[in-house]
Parts: sequence; C-alpha cells; structure tokens
Amino acid sequence: MPRLFQKITIMERVNFDELMLLIEQKKFRELKDILENLNEADVAEFIQELPQNDAIIVFRLLRKEIAAEVFSFLDIDIQQLIVNAVTDNELQEIIDELFVDDAVDIIEELPANVVKRILKGIDPKKRNIINQFLKYHENSAGGIMTAEFINLRKNMNVAQAFEYIRKNAIDKETIYTCYVTDSSKILEGVVTVKDLFLANDGDLVKDIMDTDVISAYTSDDEEEVAALFSKYDLLSVPVVDKENRLVGIVTVDDAVDVLTTEATEDFEIMGAMRPSEKPYLRTNIFTLARNRIPWLLILMISAMFTGAILTHFEEAFAALPILVTFIPMLTDTGGNSGSQASTLVIRGMALNEIATKDFFKVLVKELGVSVIVGFVLAFVNLVRIIIFNPGQTLVGVVVAFSVLATVIIAKSLGVILPMLAKKLKFDPALMASPLLTTIVDAISLIIYFLFAESILPGL
Amino acid sequence: MPRLFQKITIMERVNFDELMLLIEQKKFRELKDILENLNEADVAEFIQELPQNDAIIVFRLLRKEIAAEVFSFLDIDIQQLIVNAVTDNELQEIIDELFVDDAVDIIEELPANVVKRILKGIDPKKRNIINQFLKYHENSAGGIMTAEFINLRKNMNVAQAFEYIRKNAIDKETIYTCYVTDSSKILEGVVTVKDLFLANDGDLVKDIMDTDVISAYTSDDEEEVAALFSKYDLLSVPVVDKENRLVGIVTVDDAVDVLTTEATEDFEIMGAMRPSEKPYLRTNIFTLARNRIPWLLILMISAMFTGAILTHFEEAFAALPILVTFIPMLTDTGGNSGSQASTLVIRGMALNEIATKDFFKVLVKELGVSVIVGFVLAFVNLVRIIIFNPGQTLVGVVVAFSVLATVIIAKSLGVILPMLAKKLKFDPALMASPLLTTIVDAISLIIYFLFAESILPGL
Repeated sequence: MPRLFQKITIMERVNFDELMLLIEQKKFRELKDILENLNEADVAEFIQELPQNDAIIVFRLLRKEIAAEVFSFLDIDIQQLIVNAVTDNELQEIIDELFVDDAVDIIEELPANVVKRILKGIDPKKRNIINQFLKYHENSAGGIMTAEFINLRKNMNVAQAFEYIRKNAIDKETIYTCYVTDSSKILEGVVTVKDLFLANDGDLVKDIMDTDVISAYTSDDEEEVAALFSKYDLLSVPVVDKENRLVGIVTVDDAVDVLTTEATEDFEIMGAMRPSEKPYLRTNIFTLARNRIPWLLILMISAMFTGAILTHFEEAFAALPILVTFIPMLTDTGGNSGSQASTLVIRGMALNEIATKDFFKVLVKELGVSVIVGFVLAFVNLVRIIIFNPGQTLVGVVVAFSVLATVIIAKSLGVILPMLAKKLKFDPALMASPLLTTIVDAISLIIYFLFAESILPGL
Repeated sequence: MPRLFQKITIMERVNFDELMLLIEQKKFRELKDILENLNEADVAEFIQELPQNDAIIVFRLLRKEIAAEVFSFLDIDIQQLIVNAVTDNELQEIIDELFVDDAVDIIEELPANVVKRILKGIDPKKRNIINQFLKYHENSAGGIMTAEFINLRKNMNVAQAFEYIRKNAIDKETIYTCYVTDSSKILEGVVTVKDLFLANDGDLVKDIMDTDVISAYTSDDEEEVAALFSKYDLLSVPVVDKENRLVGIVTVDDAVDVLTTEATEDFEIMGAMRPSEKPYLRTNIFTLARNRIPWLLILMISAMFTGAILTHFEEAFAALPILVTFIPMLTDTGGNSGSQASTLVIRGMALNEIATKDFFKVLVKELGVSVIVGFVLAFVNLVRIIIFNPGQTLVGVVVAFSVLATVIIAKSLGVILPMLAKKLKFDPALMASPLLTTIVDAISLIIYFLFAESILPGL
C-alpha cells in the first residue's frame, strides 16, 4: 500500500536531500521511480534547486507526459535552459504534450529559427492554433488563454453532453465549465458539470445553460480578467474575439498567477525598482543592480533640488540654528503622510475599488483625513516644543503650521499624482512613496522657511 | 429569447443607473425580476452602491436562495447593516441557505445573544458544524474552510460515485474534487470528477484515487494554505484535524480572496498604516485618520533623533555650509536603497520564495548589489561635484564615500530587519520603507559628518 496517509502538508515538504543523494550516487533508476510518483509541482521545485547540469539530467529522466507537466511548472529561466539542452525532437514532444497556453509561453521566448523547426513537426491543427495565439499580446486575455475547452451544442441532451465530455476530457485543461456555441462558434451560453449532474439525462443543454455569460475579449488586460475571477468566484472565463466567437478560455490557476505577479510588480515599482522577471534568489546581482540604479539616480538628482532649497535658506538657519533640528521630522512626516494616501489609492485602483471618476470623492476624503491627522501632529509638536524648548513658542507655532500644511499638501499629492498617472495611461505605482517623498521634501522645506520668515522676528 | 448574446464584459457592466431609476419610481416588482436574473455578485455590487435604507429594501426583495448568495458577496459592513435590519426569522433563513464558511464568517461578527437565538432555529446537524467551526482562528485553514464537500468511499465503483455525486451535489460548494475517507473519516485519497469521467463505470474508486493528497491542518495559516493553491494549481484543499480526519475543504475562490487581502494588508503596513477592514471608498475619514496617526507619531518622534544629530554637528555645517546641500540627497538615497532591498525581501518571504534559512545567501547578494550600486552613485556624485563645485574635490570625496557606505548599510539593514522580524514572529512588512528610512537617515548623517570631520581640514 504505497504512500497511504502520507501527506505533503505545508510543513513537511518532500525531502530533497534524499533525492540529491540519489543523484550523487548515480542511482537514476531509483530517482526516476520516486520522481514519477511525486506531484509535478514538487518535481519542478526540486529541479530548480539543482545545478544546471543535474537539472537537465533529471528532467530527461522523466516520462514525456510527466516531463511536459513538470516543464509547465518551471520558471522561465530553467525552461530556457532545458530548451537549449534537448534535441528538437524532444522539444517537439514536450510542446505537443503541453496545453496551448503553456506551449505559446515557451515558444514566445525561443529564437525564430528554432520555432520554425519545432512547429513544422507539430500536428497541423495544433500548429494553427499556436500560430494564432502567438499574435496576442502576452499581457492580454488572448495571451494567457488556452485552447483546450469543452464545447457543447445547445440541442444536445444531458446524456449526450456527458458522453461528449467523457470522450474529450483527456486533453482539456478545464472540463467543469462547458461552453455552448453555435455552428459559427458564437458563444451562446455556459453550463457547468454541476448543472449537468443536477439535471435529468433527457434535459436539453439549451434549457439548463446560463445565457448571462461573463466573458472577456482577447484584447482585454490580463489584470482585469483576473479581477473577474475574484469578483464572480469563477473557475474559468471564456475569451471571445470581436465577433463574439469563442477562441479560448482563461483558467483560475492562471488568474491566480496574474494576481500574484501583478501585486509583486506593484511592490517592486513602489519600491523604486524595475520589475524583475525571476524570483529574487535566482536573479544575479548585476541584474538586481541594473533594476535599481536608474530610479536611484533619478531620485538622487531630484533630491539635489531639495539641497539647493536648503542652501537658499542658509541665512535663516545661520540666524536661528534650532530651525534645522525640525527638518528631518518635517520632511519625513510629509513623505510618510503622502505615501499613506498614495499607497491606498494605488492599491485601490489595482483592485478596481477606485476608478478615475472617483477623483473628487477621494480628494475630499483625503483632505478631511489630512486635516485631522495634521492637527494632531501639529498639536503634539507644539506641546513638545513648549515643554522641551522653553522660550521658543513662536518656533513651535511655525513648526506646527508647517506640519499641518505639509500633511495636507502631501496627502493631496498622494491622490492627485497616481490618479493623474492612471488617466495619462502611466502606471500609478510609479507615483508611490519614493518619487512622492522627493517632491514633498522640497515643498515642505519651502513652506517651512516661508512660515519662519513671516512669523519669526529677525529672519 | 432573453439576454442571449448579452455579455457582461469587463467594459460593459450592468447599468446601475437604470436600476436606481426603478427604485425612485418604486417599481419594485420590475426591479426584483431584473435582479433575480443578474449574477449575484453584480446584485451585491449594486446594493453596496445604494443608500442604507434602499440597500435594505432591495435586499429584502430577493428570493431567499438568491438572497443568501448575494449576502455572501456583500462586504462585511453591509452584511452587518442587513443583519441589524431583518428579523431573526429572515436571518435564520439566510444562514440556513449559506455555505458553512460564509455562515460562520457572519456569525462571528454578531453579538452573542443574537447568535444564540439564531442558532436555536437551525437544523441541529448544521448547528453542530457551525459551533465547531466557530472555534477555529479566523486566519487559519479552519477559519476559511467550509463543510460542504463530496465524500466518497474507496470501495464504490465509478457509477456509484456518479450516482452519489448527483444526489448530493445540490448543497456542495465544490463537487469537482471528491475526497475518499474511511469509516472514521480518515482521509485516504482524492479523486477528481475528471478522473471519474475518464474511468469506466465498473472501476473502483480505490484504483483511480490519488493517495498523494495535498492537505492542510485546521491550524495552518491561511496564507500558507493559499500558497498551496498557487503552487499546485488546485481547485480545493482538504483540511484535516490532528488525527488526519477530514473536517472541511478550502475552495480556490477563498484562496484568491486570501491572496488579495494579504497583499493589500502588506501594502498598507508597508505604507505605514494599520490595515483597514473595508474598501477605501467606504471607510470614513475618522477610521482612516485613526489607522494612520499612530505610525506617523512613532516615525515623527524617531525623526527627532535625526534632528538631534544634525544639531550635534552644527559647528561643522556652520564652518562649511556646502555640506548641508548634500544632506537630502544622502538621506533619500539611503532610504530608497534600503527600501529596495526590504521590499524584495518582504515580498519574497510573503511568497515563500525566501525563507529565514536563506539569510546569509540574501545578505551576501545584497552586499554585492550595494557595492555595485554604491560605486555608481558615488562616482556620479564625485564627478558632479568636481564639475559644478570647482575647488571642492575633497567635499566630493566625502560625499562619495558617504554615499557608498550609506548604500551598503541601508541595503544590509533592508535584509536584516525584515528577516529578523520574521524570526521573532513579527510581521516583516513592519520593517519596510518608513521605519527603515528613519533609521537609515540617522545612520547616514552620522557617517557623513564623521567622514567630513576626518577628511576635511578645519572641521
């Protein structure tokens, strides 16, 4: 009785060390047997932990059906490695076994001459679909959809539908939502296997199908397609062309990937980096440095302006050095207040909770929040200065007013900049903390010294 | 032929204005008919856009089966509103129709006396399950699982399995992955409806089931359970107790919610806020202000130390005012460099791509990156100062060295602080940009003035 009760839970993962030992001892037969009984995602994870040569050797051990599925779980850089190492014939076999969406993903990364050689050997019907799918933008619904789905006709009855599904299930990525089309492939409705289970064998598909289909166009953005899955709790979304003909489906596992990847990209952009293509631990330091230097340079140069402002007010702080003490507090508070607002706005727009039409609603809200927050922080500063810097009450008033004004301006910019970016078709995440902080730094210093010059005597 | 071809695509949503008009004109009959033909998620969205009184009126129009499903799509604050507005009887009907996971979520928010009244009227079997489920922590696998799943026996044949599924499908949340248990509910294997379709009617479940089950314990963290869905492309994950007895399942739609919510929480924490419970537009300004003030105060007070450091080196910048010009550039560059590293580390840990055992690997990598980045930025500064501030080459050297040292220290702290937080069971996201920037500000100023004092003559 093999492996009964054994569970790969979150904590007890597969013991990779044991498998590594088998490689060292060249016990490949034994390794093959073990790997072919593991979950394909675990095998992929194991291969990714190996040195390049071993990774290729281990991958080539696998039976071709398993190899294709393991391949689809690998990260793109390891896929490339394998593509370069195997023969055209082997590669063709892998691509033949893959679902169209995975096949297209890998073909997109290959040099043109290799693509030609490989596609030549593939079943013409599949080749045509692959060629068509290659035309869609990789971040569109067309770019993440697959061609394997169950296609029913509305005049079938339930028994016929089941028979059709059982005959065609083997190479369909998702069989649980079936799509009903007419003879020119126009999408007419959708019926789930659960609906079919609950109906009687003689019922007609057209009587149980749902005609209120939630679908996407091939050109729709992948992020918006993924949002449909969250909103409607779907397992798959049909993708149609401009004539409403069904051309593919997006499955929930791909939607999960899109949600995760897009969130990661937003984190990276908001952290002042170019998004990376590979997981952190497998990205080399030169790529990491290249992703980081441009933004650091831009922000560094912008910060020079802030420096110039400081120099401009040199006389003020020569006359009253205590003013300098509050500069870091003021600029940091401005930056943090602004990034609070921009973080919520950027994330809200990514989740479709905030639309550009909500601009004034959001701005008014942030003004309200910034007045409350600003007064609290201003008050704390005033009290602090009165207690710890006796005789400097006027400086306290200057600091308090500056904090209030800075918070209000920072939070307003935290709304305006990302929403403006979205309107201008830039990524709102660009307007996050780093850039905003640099802008707010300069503004808060100007406010501070203008207040100081007009309130404090002798400046 | 109603609504054929009409698709709710991403761009053409339901026309809420038309529905609002029906409310204004008190055409509730007509409204009811339209709503009951819409997707439940759309009805929920519509209700959330209404003023409170209308929301309740519209909700009460719905047939009870539809009402329960719409209810499960509503945000928690509107659910509360409805709970307070309907009679115990109505509420009981809703809870009776809900899947256990949704029922438990709402019951958790009710006052104890209401819970008692409501549970009294519910089917005893369901009541027992609800009472049991209420005991799990809301962020654990137990807290997000549901009790509705298909439970097969290994000696059933395929035809019997299908018969069982068809009879029991009606109130099962996910029927496509069936779980095989023995008489004491110990989980023995898993079989998908697709596996059943591909088998022959006479085949036994035990011969086609997969015994390598990916499962979770009731106490496992919901984030780690959600990660299983991403990694293994699953539709549901069985949840077992310590004795390996199957007690519930988590479905992929809940996993998607967890992934989205957790990412949003990380964005908020990294943006120096307490996570909010409701979408931005429905959170009032007092709650927003309350979520933001604590962190702003903490960071503001920390920034006072940086101010104190500035004061400490007052003499240096009185003697050589040009030193002040480079302060914003230096502190911003430090903050940004650090937050680049911390962003990648925090996100990498959230996605399980980076484990605490990888600490030295990550630290070495960041040291490498920071040397490259640091030299580039230092060089740019040196050249800039030589060109634009003739005769100040020594100041350029001080600035260049300070930038290099600041970048190295900032990136190291960007690794150390989040990973230390994780090790100490704090949320790594707390160690993101805002706090890190404040710490790095102080350190970079100290470095700067120490370099200045030791290199520049006369300070």
